[in-house]
Parts: sequence; structure tokens; C-alpha cells
Amino acid sequence: MTQRLRYRELGLTLGNLPLGPNNSITDIPEVSVGHVTLISGEGSLVIGNGPVRTGVTAILPHQDNIFERKVTGAAHVINGFGKSVGFPQVNELGVIESPIMLTNTLNTWRVADATIDYLTETNPGIYSFNPVVGECNDSYLNDMVGRHVAREHVFSAIREATSPNIDEGNVGAGTGMTGWGWKGGIGTSSRLITVDAGSYVAGALVLVNTGVPSELRVGTKHIGKTNAPPKTPPAPGSIMMVVGTNCPVDSRQLLRVAKRAVFGLARVGGTAEHGSGDFVIAFSNGSVSEPVKEDSMTALFLGAIEAVEEAIVNALLKAETMIGRDGNTRTALPTDLVR
Amino acid sequence: MTQRLRYRELGLTLGNLPLGPNNSITDIPEVSVGHVTLISGEGSLVIGNGPVRTGVTAILPHQDNIFERKVTGAAHVINGFGKSVGFPQVNELGVIESPIMLTNTLNTWRVADATIDYLTETNPGIYSFNPVVGECNDSYLNDMVGRHVAREHVFSAIREATSPNIDEGNVGAGTGMTGWGWKGGIGTSSRLITVDAGSYVAGALVLVNTGVPSELRVGTKHIGKTNAPPKTPPAPGSIMMVVGTNCPVDSRQLLRVAKRAVFGLARVGGTAEHGSGDFVIAFSNGSVSEPVKEDSMTALFLGAIEAVEEAIVNALLKAETMIGRDGNTRTALPTDLVR
Amino acid sequence: MTQRLRYRELGLTLGNLPLGPNNSITDIPEVSVGHVTLISGEGSLVIGNGPVRTGVTAILPHQDNIFERKVTGAAHVINGFGKSVGFPQVNELGVIESPIMLTNTLNTWRVADATIDYLTETNPGIYSFNPVVGECNDSYLNDMVGRHVAREHVFSAIREATSPNIDEGNVGAGTGMTGWGWKGGIGTSSRLITVDAGSYVAGALVLVNTGVPSELRVGTKHIGKTNAPPKTPPAPGSIMMVVGTNCPVDSRQLLRVAKRAVFGLARVGGTAEHGSGDFVIAFSNGSVSEPVKEDSMTALFLGAIEAVEEAIVNALLKAETMIGRDGNTRTALPTDLVR
Amino acid sequence: MTQRLRYRELGLTLGNLPLGPNNSITDIPEVSVGHVTLISGEGSLVIGNGPVRTGVTAILPHQDNIFERKVTGAAHVINGFGKSVGFPQVNELGVIESPIMLTNTLNTWRVADATIDYLTETNPGIYSFNPVVGECNDSYLNDMVGRHVAREHVFSAIREATSPNIDEGNVGAGTGMTGWGWKGGIGTSSRLITVDAGSYVAGALVLVNTGVPSELRVGTKHIGKTNAPPKTPPAPGSIMMVVGTNCPVDSRQLLRVAKRAVFGLARVGGTAEHGSGDFVIAFSNGSVSEPVKEDSMTALFLGAIEAVEEAIVNALLKAETMIGRDGNTRTALPTDLVR
Repeated sequence: MTQRLRYRELGLTLGNLPLGPNNSITDIPEVSVGHVTLISGEGSLVIGNGPVRTGVTAILPHQDNIFERKVTGAAHVINGFGKSVGFPQVNELGVIESPIMLTNTLNTWRVADATIDYLTETNPGIYSFNPVVGECNDSYLNDMVGRHVAREHVFSAIREATSPNIDEGNVGAGTGMTGWGWKGGIGTSSRLITVDAGSYVAGALVLVNTGVPSELRVGTKHIGKTNAPPKTPPAPGSIMMVVGTNCPVDSRQLLRVAKRAVFGLARVGGTAEHGSGDFVIAFSNGSVSEPVKEDSMTALFLGAIEAVEEAIVNALLKAETMIGRDGNTRTALPTDLVR
Repeated sequence: MTQRLRYRELGLTLGNLPLGPNNSITDIPEVSVGHVTLISGEGSLVIGNGPVRTGVTAILPHQDNIFERKVTGAAHVINGFGKSVGFPQVNELGVIESPIMLTNTLNTWRVADATIDYLTETNPGIYSFNPVVGECNDSYLNDMVGRHVAREHVFSAIREATSPNIDEGNVGAGTGMTGWGWKGGIGTSSRLITVDAGSYVAGALVLVNTGVPSELRVGTKHIGKTNAPPKTPPAPGSIMMVVGTNCPVDSRQLLRVAKRAVFGLARVGGTAEHGSGDFVIAFSNGSVSEPVKEDSMTALFLGAIEAVEEAIVNALLKAETMIGRDGNTRTALPTDLVR
Repeated sequence: MTQRLRYRELGLTLGNLPLGPNNSITDIPEVSVGHVTLISGEGSLVIGNGPVRTGVTAILPHQDNIFERKVTGAAHVINGFGKSVGFPQVNELGVIESPIMLTNTLNTWRVADATIDYLTETNPGIYSFNPVVGECNDSYLNDMVGRHVAREHVFSAIREATSPNIDEGNVGAGTGMTGWGWKGGIGTSSRLITVDAGSYVAGALVLVNTGVPSELRVGTKHIGKTNAPPKTPPAPGSIMMVVGTNCPVDSRQLLRVAKRAVFGLARVGGTAEHGSGDFVIAFSNGSVSEPVKEDSMTALFLGAIEAVEEAIVNALLKAETMIGRDGNTRTALPTDLVR
Repeated sequence: MTQRLRYRELGLTLGNLPLGPNNSITDIPEVSVGHVTLISGEGSLVIGNGPVRTGVTAILPHQDNIFERKVTGAAHVINGFGKSVGFPQVNELGVIESPIMLTNTLNTWRVADATIDYLTETNPGIYSFNPVVGECNDSYLNDMVGRHVAREHVFSAIREATSPNIDEGNVGAGTGMTGWGWKGGIGTSSRLITVDAGSYVAGALVLVNTGVPSELRVGTKHIGKTNAPPKTPPAPGSIMMVVGTNCPVDSRQLLRVAKRAVFGLARVGGTAEHGSGDFVIAFSNGSVSEPVKEDSMTALFLGAIEAVEEAIVNALLKAETMIGRDGNTRTALPTDLVR
């Protein structure tokens, strides 16, 4: 099988800003990402048995003990029809103190609980942790009720996180997802920005499971208007957008950044349809002692918007056709449609 | 001077949904719109004297006494760097009880106060009213500190509101505004939608004063990438988006609709830049006794998104080049750029 | 040991409104409550082994399938330093579709996951559920890292829920909790209210683990000013307040009710201190087709406030002295102090 | 007439914390307060003519140009049934850039507009200002529709603000207000707090116009249970609570403080009844470059709560019986009732 290409690898450009060296959230210094991908079985759904088309993804804002060296955090709900875990405390205290985990809907709490295992093991004597978990619903392809993501998968995703090269498409939490009726999954992108004379990275990693097929847009093309996927989904899913930066911002400023992710989503034709629980988790691993000037923040906003936009496009371009439970199939977005 | 054309009048289409008969917020039954446009003087700014390039716009959700027959209301803040009036009560009680007024930033409270005059005159014996006013900053062209919108202008805008034909571009509150560095102003659009087997209208009227020039997108064109307006603005302004429908929804559902306006804004290249205070005011004049089913709401979302998107485009297309105070000039977006 | 008495059983009165027949959240028709209390071991803490002083509590808004017959729901965050699960979706959609579960902090996600087991078993073919779980930190007395609340305890709490008589004090989730430095736990209370000529119940069930000792107030006494518990806690905990009614309200109105719970908390000397993650979960099992008139809602507010206030007092009065892990002890509030 | 006494002047104590030297918001260094009180006419209401029982109050966070040296700001809505101006921008940007103004409901926007006059005069060349205005409804005693607070009154309140001695009771915005059915008005109080080894002041100034008479509590007395005012009001009003400090906090932390004001209100028997639009405006004039540690904030919370509580009590104790329009009368709370 020919390797599918990212948007830039097709020779195309999106937006106005320069890319980070790897066009990835891992262009933010210290950030790493781990995926555990679970694919097994085929045929009819037997709950608890499979077929399994799912996984878990961990984003580490840095390589130190995250509970001890918390990062500035913010969380934003676009459409609250979702189960994401940890948002109230992130916004109350303005920090993230756990790896950011992504998985499928019904595995949300097992992944949160396994993250507690990780946090208690690495922080003996501490009795309170706020795990942050985002989720999308992969039940069209996956035995989701079976909750196949286990404790060891969560540990592996965290402990084997890598940088700068990370996989996209049908990996980790993205394994069984759908986007605009095509195969969805994980995507990432980054932008270089200048704020108050400092140079920083704005990066995004997205878990794409959203989209009304007829709304799909990529760059200058309204693809969905004339191109329908083989089978449109009965109900749209969701999208989790993780936005990161090393730009020094306080939590209020970071929340402003988080609220800009929706602009990137919208450019690709996202609409936060009723059933699409769309959430944003943002972090900055930059110093908080000297936040950037408020009126310099537009550059950071624009970087976040473009990174989210292109991360979504990359998720669609890198995901490959997958056959899941009961023969349910999601077809990869034909690369030609975006050219 | 040749009459400038709306997007559809250019033979172009945007989005997937059918238009209302007038492609206007006035396609919602009972809705009318009034503009008072104030243009006088030229040359150097003399505060209190002019030049004047401003106005006021009133949106009436129906033709009855609006305090007595309140409509379902919701208000949403995208970027709170703005002075809009009346939002807390709209969201607490879920109703709008005044005409929805739009004007310039520093006239906000005089317009609110004049709306109180109107409400007290038409509702003797009542001692509490919640005027709803949105604003954008037209100080680049207008003597904004002079606050030239007076009580009688507010009354005229309300009392002479019309339907279905309403003006766009350099009218009412839109007179002195800017969009993506080009001349901005007022625009409107509508979509026909089907929800729970009922047929309804989703309409939008926008006051466009936002946008980083290089971000402008229309339909399938990223215009701003290669086309700069003659003079880029020192600071971006704001956008007010009024979204209306006759679809029966409760206030929580309507807030969900209001939150979708940002998707229309983003499609045109809006980014809620730091200085752009972006606000949404939504109303439904449909009955609240039988709100539509929750999982049918996507159709209403999509209608609102497209109406906002095309309303913004219409604002840019209908606005004409204007010279304001101190010779400051905003050039009309060349129609050819959107073709 | 002499049975400890509730506030009313002491012959005292609090507030202005009449009580429900059982002075309990179960006075709301159809509501039941189940507790599973886990007490085992003593002496030094061995993580995973004990001592165990914890439990789980389930509040069922009615006796039908809760996913099929969702109830009106609202959730409110007073101080977001907590891990409660399910809030974004409750507020987005305005409904609760799972039993309301309470437990300890680190068991939150296992309880959520077990609730998923319950929901998937009772709703085959459904792939999305929003469990609602509140939590407080009982680590002063309990081996909380050991997470001793298991799947079967969750099922028992749900399946063996009773009405109208339910236990208070050291039961269920309240087993190992602390209040104002004294032994905390579970408490409940109710009020009869008249709204729009209809008679309804406002009830509350609280999980008390909050309070700066010197702030404790009961009725007309500022107890904490002159009476300190034997050992003041190193860090305050949290409080979960479940407010229920059969009064017909829509979700926006119910959120207004949820926001009143803080008034009851404050009367007892709650202060939402930094470490006290204070959350409110509200439900109405009344019909939503004809919500009460907005300006009649004060009666419902007052009922909710008094029910919360007295529920907190009952939690303190019914809780008994407990020795937990490492010999840590919480002493019961002397009944004489409230007389 | 005998001078009415503040709570402390009666030899009574409330709460646990030490008072500032003047027990006033002006104990915060640099803070001053100005009142303009308008009392004229008697007899029947003639709209525009009187009787007038109203005023305006200005709180200055420091004595420099407030637009140039903005202070950290936060705003919190307890019950949004009110017209307060300026909240969205305060929370978006985390700063207050205008004097904090209080007045009656229908004068809100004229006061905001006059504040614009003040800000434009003192900041030539600036075209955007965010006035902050809180309001309560004094129409029971005052010709509120007449809107008697004029531009010159606003200027006087700002320019003649004093410190440390400020008036309470029937002064400024408090002139025509009602509290728990008794005469309401302006009150203030302060507490000394220690946070991270630094000594600071937490102060409050309140505009009291709220309260269900039977709910009134002062200290250890549930006064309203057995003592009714001569005439209970047809509809409760609102309360504006201004909370200030010199403790260095960032805007997120300050919002946490603002959210604690409700605890002080509740202790006096506030319930945020349906018609009571209850709002909090908070500021810190301390440096933002080194905010206090998050887990030290409880001391600041407790100071704010007690200051609000006692400020409300002082408003009731200092207000004197007033006869207003149409002979409507509010009786002063008998001092003996609080003893």
C-alpha cells in the first residue's frame, strides 16, 4: 500500500504562517506524544470480544513530573454533548497536572482511572489528582462497549511517548474514528509565531470524529458539496482539539487561545452538529512569570487557528480505509479531492 | 455610480441550503429592520462636530409590543473585548424584551438610554427594562467621541423599521465600519430549514467591523492571502451577529444556536483577533410551548451558520468606498475579487 | 451507643418553610437513595489493603429506566477544585440520564465506569451514556488510593436504593468524610413549597466534607467561633449538593435553582475555601411541558436553600466519631453545641 | 435626630477576622469613594419631576488615571436579572479601566455615558473605554423613570471622592433603596488578612436593595422570622457588591474572590430571589507581577466574605426611614433588633 501523504507533502499550503520544523505539536519544546493502537478481530460484534478498532493517545506537555511541574491550562467547551473529564478543575486553577489523554467514549473513565494509577505511582503521598481525558465515539467500527483500552495501554502511551516524529491517522485514540463521513483519526500541525519580539510555536493535535459530510471544506475547496463518502454516518461524532504553545501566557490568556480553536475547525467545515461534543484542551509550558502583552495575542490566536485547521486536514489525509465490527467500513478521503 | 451587488446577484452560491425569498433576516415572519444613517461633514476631526459617519440599526423580532410579548433570547460572547449591553439578563431569563439595537462603541449607552425612552413611553407603569445593544468601533471614519446618534434617531430606527426589503452596506450602524481592511457595514442573509417536519427560516443580520486583512476568505477563495486593501487598519474592530428564527426553541436550545454563529464568521476568515469584541444575539419568535426535538437541531445550526456567513459577505459586497474624518478612507472590496 | 438525632428530632427548627413528611430528598415522589458503606481494617495505612472507610451513594430520580426517561438536569460549579464527572453534557442538553452517584475522589472514575456497566446492561444497543458522579476526598480516614469501591458496590447502591427512609451520617459516600473539622457525611432534608398554585417538594442530599472549623454556624449559633474540634484538618475538603424537585421547570430554570444551593451552604458557614471543590447537581422529575412561571420561582429557591442548609446540619448531627487509617480520628459534633 | 450606629459601634462583633482601621473599603490603600445624593420633592409621582430619592456612587480603585493604570478586575453574576454594564470586557481582559459606578436601574446608561465623558476628557485621543456600572431599582421611593442622575452628578461623584471617611445608608446610589423590606442603601466594611506572609486589606462596599423580609439574619439572629417591616415590598430588588483588595492576585484568582461574595450575602439572609439581580464587581490594586500562591487564597476569601456580610449589615443599620414618591415609605431597621 502506498503511504498516504500529509497536506504539505502534497505540495499544498494552507493559511499564512510558517510551519514548525516538523509541522507537529512536538515542535513545542519538551512536548511528546504516545499512541497505543488496538486492532484485532473482524466480523460480527461480540461485546467484550471485538472486533477492536480503538486506542489511546497521551500528550505530555513536558518530560518532567507533570504533577510537580504543572503547566498553564485551559479548557473550552464548544458543544458539551461529550464526556470529557477534568475540565472544571483546569479552569478553576488554571493548570494541567496530568498527561492529556484521548480515547473512545466509553473508555473515558477507565483511562482516567489508569492515569490515576500512573500519577499515584509517580507521586507517592499525594491524594488528589485531576486527570484530563478527551473522548470521541468509535462505536461504528469498534466494540466500544467492550472497553478494550486497559491500564497497561495507558501506561505504554505515556511512557513510550516520542518526539518529534509521531504518527497520524488510524493510530491511538484515532484508530476507529470518522471525519465528515470519511475515515478520521489523529492529526497534528504547528505554526511559528512572533509575540512581543519572542519566537514561539503554536501546535495542535486533534482527534477527528466529527463532520456533516456535505460540509467538508479543505483549503479552497468545498469538497463535501459534490463528493459524498460511500456511506454517510447515522450520527456525527465529536472532535477533541489539543492546542499547545511555549508562549508564556497566564491561564486567562490561554483560555482566549483555546476559544480560537473553533475557527480552525470551522474552516474545514466543522459545525458542532447536535451530536458532536466538541472540546478544546489548551496548555502552555512557557513560563508564567511574564505573560505576553494582551494586545500582542492575535499572533498566537492565528497560529492556533491554522495549526488546528491543518491538523484536522492531516487527520483525514493520513487515515486509511478501515473495516470494523459487523463489516462497517470507513473509506479514506481520496487524496485527489483535496488537490 | 453603479449599484453594488449582493453575493447571489453575482450568480454565485455559498453553502448547501436554500435561501429565504429575500435572502434576509426579514424572511422570518414578523421581523423588520430600521436604519438611521448619519453622514455629514468632511475634513479634519472636530470632536462633537464631525465628520459624522455613523448610525443606528434596530431589529424588531415582531410588530407587537416587545416588552409585553417577549421573545426567546440568548446571547453569546466569542471575544468579550466589547461593550454590548443587556447580555446577563437575556441569558438569565431566556428572553429579549426590547428591540435589538446596533450602533457605534461610544454611542452604546445613549442608544440604550433612548431605547429606555421608547420602552417607558410604550409601557407606562413599568419600571424595569433590559435594552439590548451591540456596538462596533467606527472611530477610523467617524467622530465617535462626538456621539452623534441621538434619541430621535433611535426612535426613527425603531418606528420606521421595514420588511422585507432592507438596506445593506453603509447604512445604519454599519455606516462607518471596516471589514478585513475594506469597507464594512451591514449585511443580511437567510436559509430555509426543515426541523421535525416543520419548515422555518434561519436568518442573520451582521454588523461587520472585524478581520485581519490577510485572513479574508469568501466561498472558495482565500482573498486576503494575495489581495491587500489600500490601507490596513491599525487595529481590528468587532462584529455583532444577530441570529433569528421562527423555529420553536427554548432558551437553552437557542443558546446552542447562538454558539454556532462563530462557524459562519470563521468561514469568511474571522479570527476574533484580540481587539475584536465579537458578540452574538439570538432570538426566536416561534412558540416556546413545544420546542423542537433536541436531536433535530443540526438543521437549525447549519441554517444559522450559512446565514451568518453570507450576511458577512453581503456586508462587504454592498458597502461602498467611504472617506471619513481626517480624510481616512476605506475602500470597497472589489467585486471581482470574490468572483 | 445512643442513637444520634437529626436537627428536628432535637426539637429545633431552621428556616421558615414546612418540612416534607420525611424531611428527606425521598419526599420527592419516585426518588430513592442507596448507600453501600465500606468499613474494614484498622491501624496503619497499607495502600490497597486499608483501613477502608468509604462507600458509594446512588440517588435515583425515579424508578424507571433513567436513560429512557431522562429527567431535567442542571449542574453548577461553585469552586471547581474537584473531579466531578458529567457536568458539561448535563448543562448542554439539560438532562440527566444516569443515576447520580457520589463517592470518594480517587474512586470517581471507577464508579463512573461501573455506572456505564449498569447503563449498558440495562440499555442494550446504546453506545453513549453520560454518568454523573460527585466526589469528596476521604483520604484522612480512608485508604483512598486503594480505590475500594468496586463494580458490585455501585450496582448494589443503585439496585437496593430505598425510599422514603434513608440513612445519614457515616454511610455510603459519606463514610469517611469531615465537616468543619468534625465528622462529616451524608445528610438530607426537604421542604414543601407552593409554586403557581401547585404544591411541590424541594429536597436536598449532601455529601459534607468541607468547612473551616472556626466558620461553623448552625441556626442562630456561630459554633466554630468558640468551639474547635479536637484536631483541625490539614486541608478542607469539598461538598456535593444534590438538589431535587418535582416542580416542573425547564433546564434554564433548574440551573437557577442549582445556583441557590450555595446560600444554604453559606448559612452553615461554608466558604468554598481554596481546596473545597463545591459542586451542585440538580434534577427535576416533574413534567417539562409546562414549566412554572418565571416570577414564581422564588418559592422554589427558598425551598432549595433551606433543604440544603438543614441537610448539611443533619449530616453533622448524624455522623458519629470514626477512627480511620493510621489512627486518624474525626470526632462527632457534640449535639449540645447546636442546642 | 440621633445618629444611627454601625454594627461595631453597637459593641457587636461579626465573624472571626480583625477589622481595617476604618472598617471600610477605603482601608485599601489608594481607594476612595464619592457619593452624590439627590433628594427633592414629595407627594405624588410626576415622571420627570419627582419626587427624587436617588443618587450615584463612584468607587475609585486608586487616585491615578484609571484608564492608564488599569487594575486587575473580575465580575461575577449571581442572578443575572439586572442591567449592569461592562462585565464581558472585565472578564475577557481581566482589568477594570473606569471608576466603578453605582446608580439606579434606569439611570444605568446615562451614568455609563457620563463616565465616557469623564474618560474621554481625561484621555484625549483614546476611542474605546469600558465603563463599569452597577444598578438597583429604587422606583418604590424614587421617580426612576425620570432619570435624575445627570452628567454633573457623575463628575462630582468621581471628582469629590474621599477617603478614608465615607458615608453609608441613604447616600449616593443607596438613597432610595430597600433591604429585606426595611430601608436599604450603601454600606461598607473591611478585614485585615495575611496571605503568603503579606498583610493586606479585603474591603467591600455594597448597594443593598435585596431581600425577602422573612429571611433577614444578622449575626446570630434570624430577625426576619419574627419581625416584619411595616410594609413588605411587592417585589425584591437587587444587590451590587463591590469587593476590593490590595492583595496581589491575577484576574483568575480575583474571579475566585468575586465568587465568594455570595457567602457574605447569604449569611445576612440573601437568597437571590427571582427579581433580585445580584452582581459582584471585584478589583485588586495590588501588583500583578507576583500573584499570591493559589493555596493561600482562603484567607482572602474569608476576608471578602466577612467584609461583604458586615457591609450589608451596616447598610441596613445606617439607613434612615425615608418617605418617597406617592408617600411610599421605607422604615429604618430598628437597631434593637440586631442587638
